[in-house]
Amino acid sequence: MSREARFRQIAVELGYDFDGEIKVGGNYSPLVVHDNIAYISGQIPRVGDTVVVQGAVGRDVALAQGQLAAKICIMRAVALLLRKFASLDKIKRILSIDVYVQSADGFTQQSEVSDAASEVLYAIFGEDGVHARTSVGVFQLPKNAPVEISLVVATC
Amino acid sequence: MSREARFRQIAVELGYDFDGEIKVGGNYSPLVVHDNIAYISGQIPRVGDTVVVQGAVGRDVALAQGQLAAKICIMRAVALLLRKFASLDKIKRILSIDVYVQSADGFTQQSEVSDAASEVLYAIFGEDGVHARTSVGVFQLPKNAPVEISLVVATC
Amino acid sequence: MSREARFRQIAVELGYDFDGEIKVGGNYSPLVVHDNIAYISGQIPRVGDTVVVQGAVGRDVALAQGQLAAKICIMRAVALLLRKFASLDKIKRILSIDVYVQSADGFTQQSEVSDAASEVLYAIFGEDGVHARTSVGVFQLPKNAPVEISLVVATC
Repeated sequence: MSREARFRQIAVELGYDFDGEIKVGGNYSPLVVHDNIAYISGQIPRVGDTVVVQGAVGRDVALAQGQLAAKICIMRAVALLLRKFASLDKIKRILSIDVYVQSADGFTQQSEVSDAASEVLYAIFGEDGVHARTSVGVFQLPKNAPVEISLVVATC
Repeated sequence: MSREARFRQIAVELGYDFDGEIKVGGNYSPLVVHDNIAYISGQIPRVGDTVVVQGAVGRDVALAQGQLAAKICIMRAVALLLRKFASLDKIKRILSIDVYVQSADGFTQQSEVSDAASEVLYAIFGEDGVHARTSVGVFQLPKNAPVEISLVVATC
Repeated sequence: MSREARFRQIAVELGYDFDGEIKVGGNYSPLVVHDNIAYISGQIPRVGDTVVVQGAVGRDVALAQGQLAAKICIMRAVALLLRKFASLDKIKRILSIDVYVQSADGFTQQSEVSDAASEVLYAIFGEDGVHARTSVGVFQLPKNAPVEISLVVATC
């Protein structure tokens, strides 16, 4: 199965459509490419106009919902890559991801939230999806998102 | 108008002078260049010896003051680039910025703070200043800064 | 003295052994290398199975213990580089580090925690260890770690 087919299959499994426009405000870009390295802006679990999961993980949001949010962040990033390069075969390697988890006081399972993001990358890109990763628990995120993920990606 | 003229104009508008030495303690550097990529250390809104805005945005610091702080962080970064390369024409592209906002409980307008940073980069560098961006709300920042911004920049 | 000898000397001074396996869960990697750039996943002060310092700096953990934790994070990262490249002479330059400090309310000495990390890099790599740095205070970290550090490193 192609990477794109796996991407589309995961979208169906999650029940969200990632084909719509990914909005961005301000004078920045969701994705900048230079010398075959793509820098992807921090993605929150927004589908269309809605942040589909909101709140702090470990308080408003259960671990499983935080993991769902992490998957949506990654799917948005992959959708951006697909739109930019027309094919996911142009992705050489996912180099690193930074995962910011809006965390309740005492919540220390940030890595478990991130595992869901890593799992999606592996499901789509296989060994080329295996990345370096940093997971931290932050106090607040834009639009009350539970998770935000930025990526650095090597392209062909 | 040259990039440097625009930089100097914004300095006048903000009312701060970015020509002084940018102090750095410890065994690190405010700016490291390798293979035409410049890595700029996290900048806080310090002018000379003073962090000119302090506290959490949404509690001690209003949104507009947080935005001012973000602009000062970026002006410091640009001052570092100017000092290193003698001309801002050596900047090929701002690749990505990470914006950390010291956030009050419930404050979710981190993106609005970051917009002020993006605006300054666009004002100075035009399309070459359009970058990938990640904005998060952190609990504390060094020296009680309301905002800290790090950058990755492509140079000629 | 070689870089490796200095690394081993600091391990002895700290009283920890960094020769054991560095465990990683999930579909990610502690270190990804692409085009002579190594991306190192966020390291916490874990030795073997134990996070040897835990809690928020400025509340559960004194500054000196936070600094010890930062040193252990860096030693883990250097151990990863040593394992990957067999020799630390393959390291060309430490480009940048991101230091996340789990911070108590009102704790603003994140830079002082990071200084300990920078000091170890300088002790091992000398001028090639001088890096760009970003230090922030986060609300929580995985496994209740007081410090987490990720690195970007240029290799030969």
